Amino acid sequence: MKYVVIGGDAAGMSAASRLKRVKPEEEVIVFEKTEDVSYSACGMPYNIADEKNPMQKLVVRNAETFRTKQNIDLRTGHKATGIDKNKKIVFGEKSDGSTFKEQYDKLLIATGASAIIPEIHGINNEAVFVLKTLNDGKKIKNFIENKKPQTALIIGMGYIALEMAEALSTRGIKVTMIKKRQQLLPWMLPELSNIVGKELADNKIEFFPGQPLKAITKEESSLIIKTDKDNFKADMVLIAIGVKPSSELADSCGIKLGKNEAISIDSNMKTSVADIFAAGDCADCMNIVSGQKTWTPLALTANRGGRIAADNMLEEKSSFPGITNTSVFKAFNLEIAKTGLTLDEAERAGFTPVYKVIESKSKAHVYKDAAPIHLSFIADKKTGRILGSQIVGTEGAARRINSAAVALKAEMTLEDFYNCDLAYAPPFSPVWDPLLTAASILMKQID
Amino acid sequence: MKYVVIGGDAAGMSAASRLKRVKPEEEVIVFEKTEDVSYSACGMPYNIADEKNPMQKLVVRNAETFRTKQNIDLRTGHKATGIDKNKKIVFGEKSDGSTFKEQYDKLLIATGASAIIPEIHGINNEAVFVLKTLNDGKKIKNFIENKKPQTALIIGMGYIALEMAEALSTRGIKVTMIKKRQQLLPWMLPELSNIVGKELADNKIEFFPGQPLKAITKEESSLIIKTDKDNFKADMVLIAIGVKPSSELADSCGIKLGKNEAISIDSNMKTSVADIFAAGDCADCMNIVSGQKTWTPLALTANRGGRIAADNMLEEKSSFPGITNTSVFKAFNLEIAKTGLTLDEAERAGFTPVYKVIESKSKAHVYKDAAPIHLSFIADKKTGRILGSQIVGTEGAARRINSAAVALKAEMTLEDFYNCDLAYAPPFSPVWDPLLTAASILMKQID
Repeated sequence: MKYVVIGGDAAGMSAASRLKRVKPEEEVIVFEKTEDVSYSACGMPYNIADEKNPMQKLVVRNAETFRTKQNIDLRTGHKATGIDKNKKIVFGEKSDGSTFKEQYDKLLIATGASAIIPEIHGINNEAVFVLKTLNDGKKIKNFIENKKPQTALIIGMGYIALEMAEALSTRGIKVTMIKKRQQLLPWMLPELSNIVGKELADNKIEFFPGQPLKAITKEESSLIIKTDKDNFKADMVLIAIGVKPSSELADSCGIKLGKNEAISIDSNMKTSVADIFAAGDCADCMNIVSGQKTWTPLALTANRGGRIAADNMLEEKSSFPGITNTSVFKAFNLEIAKTGLTLDEAERAGFTPVYKVIESKSKAHVYKDAAPIHLSFIADKKTGRILGSQIVGTEGAARRINSAAVALKAEMTLEDFYNCDLAYAPPFSPVWDPLLTAASILMKQID
Repeated sequence: MKYVVIGGDAAGMSAASRLKRVKPEEEVIVFEKTEDVSYSACGMPYNIADEKNPMQKLVVRNAETFRTKQNIDLRTGHKATGIDKNKKIVFGEKSDGSTFKEQYDKLLIATGASAIIPEIHGINNEAVFVLKTLNDGKKIKNFIENKKPQTALIIGMGYIALEMAEALSTRGIKVTMIKKRQQLLPWMLPELSNIVGKELADNKIEFFPGQPLKAITKEESSLIIKTDKDNFKADMVLIAIGVKPSSELADSCGIKLGKNEAISIDSNMKTSVADIFAAGDCADCMNIVSGQKTWTPLALTANRGGRIAADNMLEEKSSFPGITNTSVFKAFNLEIAKTGLTLDEAERAGFTPVYKVIESKSKAHVYKDAAPIHLSFIADKKTGRILGSQIVGTEGAARRINSAAVALKAEMTLEDFYNCDLAYAPPFSPVWDPLLTAASILMKQID
């Protein structure tokens, strides 16, 4: 049996490792178009903030280790360009321009996602960046070191944008942020997004919502960024308006696409074409709260999906459990965490969402330095079922989200959660954990 | 309707507050033997460590506030000494020596727990302390300030003992610990209790297990503490060998006692005698993992129990959800957390417990300063059901226990938990949260 994997990032290498561990005698070939495999993409903003830490340190395991230690036939600089699903052959092009083809018995597509780049005048400029691949990160870091930019404009307001606002500020660069839509963080409860807005302002980040990008022009050593309202001047620009699934290869061989043009897969990671599987950021997945397909590129989903795809390629039945869409990130001193559905998502899924943001403390009230923590559950008004939770705070606020993620998995109501026996000691929490208080307060709004 | 509460601490004042909130027009009388109500007992070690923070700051709400703001008839310096369950009368003695009696319609006993004091020679010495009441805490703090002890001997190895070892060390006092049994922390998985032992040694705490206390004698300004093996010399002694339920009053009027001589109550906080309820450290409660009654004095249980007792005194049906016995504490730099059953408890409850301690990291591996975290689930070998979890580490390790506490409430198996969508971002966790890894590893031992 010959197993072929396209894409050597989280999902692809998780799958290849598992395939080889279970079947050491079988051939496992991975085609990766770049030279980098298995690096911590999520660590890039934090690395950019740290002048002294080389970006190469983000490589968790290098290609050679996969080859020699795990005996995976990892072929970097190999870009797959076509699949013949009938003859079961992958075609491609090497970085030296030559071509290759390879037969497979079972194929995994793990082509990931790519940064969305707006098609506007002046976008191709050496001072205009995205941050998706390790190479993108290296370019930004080199630019900062060589060109010593004083000012940066970030376009977008997602977690990469916010993490990079902090990273660039840490490097002494004055950051301005613009975004197309009017709302700062549309997915976030307004009371919480206001707190994030204040944190940005407190850290001297100017932001201008409601300004769609129109063009970028060069002026001496700087860039002029034009929106439909204003002109901004900056030494560098980061485009951080989101990512899209890299599903063109799958599409071209007739594999069905789903949510957000991601590859549609079943719970066994199977695509619509026999013997072709998909996992990671290129594929969709089930949100177990809404019961609907979603496209949510997240590291744990990719790692888990890779493992489960491998199991199914090995014909060991294994199902992806679905996600609750849990994410955390840092913006300056704030920790921001969410799990489950947003208000909009909850409504679209047919629920009647209610929420109530409360303020609690990071530890017992007797501590003078107990930090504020703002949080809420989102629950269904009719049944009390927990649909999501959002937390903004400091001092370990973000790690609290996991309790809510477990509650979502267990399909708990607010009352079920309120009855959980959470930990208390003065250095860690008030007697009533902030999440218990949030549950208790919101219970009053349930029918 | 006249509501009477005996005991003005967490359970008593939670109940009184709720009674008065729901029924402002009814009489709510609280008898408290001391002058202190509603203080953070758990905060005492941390306060003792902090020379500049007066102990009175631990009082969350003073007696006068309960009287004037909440209109609760709070009578401090009133020690209840007897109950006539037929005539429904509480008898007692005031701190001035006079007596009182009061009729009730519904009575709550919330008499708490008291420190266990061994009956040995020399125990009544002004340099021998326990730490249970605010007054105990004040005595210790005053002694440190006035007598400037250089050395302390702590007898016991529970969380009060460990927190006080840290607190006294912080005050510059050389601490030695002894305990009767041989094992350092018998409830803890051995791999984890070894880490705690090392932390104590690293912080210059000498400890001598397997040494039962025999006598204390005075020698000049110091004390000589005799065990069956050695003699220890110290300027002060802290007895921290545990607490027992203060259930004598309940016993004397024929109320049925249960586990550990605590007052036996049903899920509506009712005792065996009509119209008498009990809550807090004096009462037992249900452990939902073992399905057996337990006696576990914890702050959240007391607060929750007080509220639920009040609901039932008001004849609004409300059930105590049971506990999973979650606790956290700090010992020097270590955060120590547990939830659920210990190995012994699991065996006694009829399970076949298995566990596997793993080492993971507090954040992504690319961080040079990622701290080790050691943890394990305890699960039933036959069914994979999670029975407990224990965590030792730094940097927010303790707050992770809540996810496991929620899983216990939901009666999850290891596989259920492994399928939870926990948060990942480099500053907060590895991609696979330490608890997910612990679940995954232990799954291999399940039948």
